[in-house]
Amino acid sequence: MIYADNAATTKMSKTAIAAMLPFLDETYGNPSGLYSVGQKAKEALEGARQTIARLIGAAPNEILFTSGGSEGDNQAILSAAALGKKKGKTHIISDTIEHHAVLHTLKKLEKEGFEVTYLPAHENGIVRPQELEDAIRDDTCLVTVMYANNEIGTIQPIRALGEICRKHSVIFHTDAVQAVGHIPVNVKDDNVDLLCASAHKFHGPKGVGFLYAKRGVRLQNLIEGGAQERGLRAGTENVGGIVAMAAALQEAVDGMEENTKKLTALRDRLIDGLSEIEHSALNGDAVQRLPSNVSFCFEGIEGESLLLLLDDLGVCASSGSACTSGSLDPSHVLLAIGRVHDVAHGSLRLTLGEDATEADADEIIRCTKQVVAHLRSFSPVWRDLCNGKGNFIL
Amino acid sequence: MIYADNAATTKMSKTAIAAMLPFLDETYGNPSGLYSVGQKAKEALEGARQTIARLIGAAPNEILFTSGGSEGDNQAILSAAALGKKKGKTHIISDTIEHHAVLHTLKKLEKEGFEVTYLPAHENGIVRPQELEDAIRDDTCLVTVMYANNEIGTIQPIRALGEICRKHSVIFHTDAVQAVGHIPVNVKDDNVDLLCASAHKFHGPKGVGFLYAKRGVRLQNLIEGGAQERGLRAGTENVGGIVAMAAALQEAVDGMEENTKKLTALRDRLIDGLSEIEHSALNGDAVQRLPSNVSFCFEGIEGESLLLLLDDLGVCASSGSACTSGSLDPSHVLLAIGRVHDVAHGSLRLTLGEDATEADADEIIRCTKQVVAHLRSFSPVWRDLCNGKGNFIL
Repeated sequence: MIYADNAATTKMSKTAIAAMLPFLDETYGNPSGLYSVGQKAKEALEGARQTIARLIGAAPNEILFTSGGSEGDNQAILSAAALGKKKGKTHIISDTIEHHAVLHTLKKLEKEGFEVTYLPAHENGIVRPQELEDAIRDDTCLVTVMYANNEIGTIQPIRALGEICRKHSVIFHTDAVQAVGHIPVNVKDDNVDLLCASAHKFHGPKGVGFLYAKRGVRLQNLIEGGAQERGLRAGTENVGGIVAMAAALQEAVDGMEENTKKLTALRDRLIDGLSEIEHSALNGDAVQRLPSNVSFCFEGIEGESLLLLLDDLGVCASSGSACTSGSLDPSHVLLAIGRVHDVAHGSLRLTLGEDATEADADEIIRCTKQVVAHLRSFSPVWRDLCNGKGNFIL
Repeated sequence: MIYADNAATTKMSKTAIAAMLPFLDETYGNPSGLYSVGQKAKEALEGARQTIARLIGAAPNEILFTSGGSEGDNQAILSAAALGKKKGKTHIISDTIEHHAVLHTLKKLEKEGFEVTYLPAHENGIVRPQELEDAIRDDTCLVTVMYANNEIGTIQPIRALGEICRKHSVIFHTDAVQAVGHIPVNVKDDNVDLLCASAHKFHGPKGVGFLYAKRGVRLQNLIEGGAQERGLRAGTENVGGIVAMAAALQEAVDGMEENTKKLTALRDRLIDGLSEIEHSALNGDAVQRLPSNVSFCFEGIEGESLLLLLDDLGVCASSGSACTSGSLDPSHVLLAIGRVHDVAHGSLRLTLGEDATEADADEIIRCTKQVVAHLRSFSPVWRDLCNGKGNFIL
């Protein structure tokens, strides 16, 4: 099996598992407990906080542990909106290719009277800083633009966007779920006020993440209750998961330079190979993209069938985002970068892991060519296109 | 070490750990993925849902996975409040000894214009059904009363309270974090509409829980985003944690009869032993209480010092709830059942686990007697009381 869906979730690393295990049945105490087994858990929790803070350029008390990226995005955006509302500022700027954790939260705020401007991501999937600057108004309270896109892998010019926000004193949030652990992220250098990440995207466990909130940016609770996390996020801390997340992030950052080199070569090998398929196209920017992300559209086929047949051949891939699979609508991201409905349906996302080889890439290319040809062989849409009924788009 | 703080958190059972491990680095696929490793994860997820549903008398599609008890309580209460508001009903009934996950959520709703009636829990820590019935109004949209109290262990007459709610067509929510896995819980028999539980209270992992919502009781999202959990709770499912929770609950229910017998005997042995300490008193009802809960107040001492010295002697215990430790305020629960401020400060909660022995109970009694005597020997409050300045309350 070749697992090529690391943007959806990753296998936990041995290091992360080893870091977690002692906190399940040895040092299992409640970190709020005064006794030693609780205090040991508390020390581990704070150690993890320090590690994570250091790895993204933050201070430990700027890190809040969450159950994952979605929870963090919700809390960050709602907090900034609440701060804005207090000052009579109810305008938010985002873009058209955000994750649903951001988009649906913004929809909720629109129902409550907020106005949201969605910047275009253009054909290359990248937001333009000048367009952000032009959109900022006196009543803008928040800009939220993702660090890197989960479907097409494009990396946004976060530093430039952050600079503009700082200049205009607008809070800047970035959903960095696809970036943290994969490309260098430094909240200070990047001028970021709020940032969310999720452990299972970088070989940590599922069900745990963190939210960075710059000192002075006051969070409001999404989950009310006990006084954990300085009273900002209730619920007994998932100590084992948090410690594992810190270990996974340390490992990811330590290996980043080498892995980036390796994955970029594999990515470009895949892109070159898949480009040989006629009437296909890479989605997103060829350069400003995550080292592991390959996203293609193939004309005349259905992405779902492509995935199922690839699975039969031992290749695990996805079509757009895992969070929206089960839906028959084409990806909002692909539509936003200008793919028409039919073309957007024939999409394939491949995100290799650090243990992938050139042989894996070649096998994926071979399987994809075979499956695309097979699906086209009985596709009425493809036959029509070949017979001159309608025009090829790609 | 004798761990006597199982109400705060428990050690994961071997069964639960074994159930979890394969989902960390073997069947780690995203349950939303179409490929086989994702579908296997999906099957495990749905299997866990069936197990949990069966164990509490629910249907699988009435179970929603959360990050724990606090998240569930927040979502359940806010959902019921939103349903009420739509119908112009903004009155809620709760009680004075609820967990902060409930109380703080109610505070938030009060700020939004809801009115909350807090029923008294009386000296024995138990809400009276007749008082609930008397409090219900035409505009009551929700009753939320916990199944069992986390500090004093009293079990509420949930079935009777549920019957009253059903009769008046009012949604009934119960925070069952301390009950599920410890005493029999059946949502149908208990007339419950919404119920929350947390895995780490019954030897499952931290950071995972579930919310039961009776068919027809429409939930609103607390966490917006992807379409996971039928669109009601976004975020990649914590498959390993969820599977471990189901395994832990199965194990807890299988062993419940035997463990209850054993723990009740140990509990009563502890109560008898600690009652020998002069000027002490059991908090809560002696009969309607959790099999593992012992809660005492000792006059003339500080609970915090008691815990630290007990820890030195190898006994892990707590004073009130772990969620409020760090706070110098006495427990709101102890105040609500009529303990005065000074007495409430001298509290001790002991919650033994299923592997505890009579020797453990005897050792705890011995240590507590020793530490209480020691603390009283240099307590000015105690000296004053002994010298007739002021009166003993207990």
